[in-house]
Amino acid sequence: MNTETRLQDEFPTRLERKVEMFQRLDPVVHTPEERWAEGPLSEERVREFDEKGFMFFESFFSQDEMDGFIRELKDYEDDEDLKVSEGTILEPGKEEIRSIFGIHEISERFDRLTRDPKLLAMVKQLLDSDVYIHQSRINYKPGFKGKGFNWHSDFETWHSEDGMPKMRCLSCSIVMTDNNEFNGPLMLIPGSHKNFIPCVGRTPENNYKKSLKSQTIGVPDDRSLQQLMDEGFIEAPKGPAGSLIVFECNTLHGSNTNMSCWPRSNLFFVYNSVHNTLVEPFCGNKPRPQFLANRKNWEPLKPV
Amino acid sequence: MNTETRLQDEFPTRLERKVEMFQRLDPVVHTPEERWAEGPLSEERVREFDEKGFMFFESFFSQDEMDGFIRELKDYEDDEDLKVSEGTILEPGKEEIRSIFGIHEISERFDRLTRDPKLLAMVKQLLDSDVYIHQSRINYKPGFKGKGFNWHSDFETWHSEDGMPKMRCLSCSIVMTDNNEFNGPLMLIPGSHKNFIPCVGRTPENNYKKSLKSQTIGVPDDRSLQQLMDEGFIEAPKGPAGSLIVFECNTLHGSNTNMSCWPRSNLFFVYNSVHNTLVEPFCGNKPRPQFLANRKNWEPLKPV
Repeated sequence: MNTETRLQDEFPTRLERKVEMFQRLDPVVHTPEERWAEGPLSEERVREFDEKGFMFFESFFSQDEMDGFIRELKDYEDDEDLKVSEGTILEPGKEEIRSIFGIHEISERFDRLTRDPKLLAMVKQLLDSDVYIHQSRINYKPGFKGKGFNWHSDFETWHSEDGMPKMRCLSCSIVMTDNNEFNGPLMLIPGSHKNFIPCVGRTPENNYKKSLKSQTIGVPDDRSLQQLMDEGFIEAPKGPAGSLIVFECNTLHGSNTNMSCWPRSNLFFVYNSVHNTLVEPFCGNKPRPQFLANRKNWEPLKPV
Repeated sequence: MNTETRLQDEFPTRLERKVEMFQRLDPVVHTPEERWAEGPLSEERVREFDEKGFMFFESFFSQDEMDGFIRELKDYEDDEDLKVSEGTILEPGKEEIRSIFGIHEISERFDRLTRDPKLLAMVKQLLDSDVYIHQSRINYKPGFKGKGFNWHSDFETWHSEDGMPKMRCLSCSIVMTDNNEFNGPLMLIPGSHKNFIPCVGRTPENNYKKSLKSQTIGVPDDRSLQQLMDEGFIEAPKGPAGSLIVFECNTLHGSNTNMSCWPRSNLFFVYNSVHNTLVEPFCGNKPRPQFLANRKNWEPLKPV
């Protein structure tokens, strides 16, 4: 690592001792407020994202648009080669697929979706810059057995384990199957993105092999979580296939087990600003694999 | 077991091979339909219970009435003697209390609550007879760590492991802390009480020592569950402390992990008809302990 890429660590985490949470330093919406009304999102929606750290669009894509993606997903579920690929994460102790990373590199169809003009215009409005895909994934939750995800900030991991310098990044989660109250929908804590919670505990090398099945390092402490839940409560947006949740990289989120018979699949595209490309991981470990943290292709995405 | 108490097993379960679910033989509401309007429940509510297998009353008891109970519960949480009592079930692998059985025998206050005139009149209307307490319990779900309960029919266990002959029994679940979408509220499948699902697998002796932590014997198969969920969906009634869920002994129910910071405690009183007292367990094992299945005191409850 040369001195030019060595940045000051503004978000120290994975520490030996507990440090109190502190206010995020970076803007949430990177476009200056006087330009919030310029669209495509209304000023109202931009303000909502700024305050809550996420926003929900019911049926952002139509059922017709979704059908092709859903057919392709079904094929992947039966693909034995894919099951043993490095970017495919199985359920703890099981043979079932939990996540497929790098989905936009596997599939032309999903690659084009990352460059959907509606999606891209909105992302660029919020981050006020060109963007590229930092990570993409599908999370599966089969009926009766799909496990949940503990509360966490994506940015905490991306900063410490991937070397993402600042909070200028967001996720688009596209609901591939109807999400309801009972199939383990994404839960978010409104307003939680305004604070950074330093976590305790050194990061083991290759931590991702464990953390992608069940995260125990880089999880916020109960007291900070309680404070943020008491202030902002919890929301779990629900809607039909094609609905969209856009959430800021530091918004605390998680999800519960799917106890219903209805499978739940969500697609995640992580857009990072081209002014926020990765440096060496701040935790000091070697970088995680490319399928988790793109270090090769930071070309600005162009709408299809 | 003498021949007088040997009844025909109308609900065979814990079998070697899968047998399809079949219609329940017993009425849901035992009062004949022409007397449903006699009260205290309205005919409409009686019909709701008959069709869905449960009903919900927001703030059935006032917050004032609840406060005393909640204070008493807090004392129990810190009671080390109670932690090692036979009726106290700890979380799998943990030191935290999951359930306290026989709460109405421990506490004069909870004993009186089982004989609350409003509660008792309603129960007797639905079961059309005098009743006694078959079982009572508190289920705790502390914030962040309270585990859930798999889908099950109480009657399936009470019949096979406790020798309850017929479906003439119901549970009153009183919400001791506010129940919301995120602290693992009780989930029920509307209409599921109309079918009996025979389960596969012999019952080990002392099965309860395991099943009360995590149930694996006597759980309905995924295919039957899916059919009933597709027909009736799932409901999870929510409300403030003092709210009440009345559900039929064969209604399928379960609950998810509490991922919120807000603890959830529910109180359960199981009322059985005095015409439905226990015989020898139909699974052929020795009876479970008194704290799980009352075999000693079948005196009709009198309102306080």
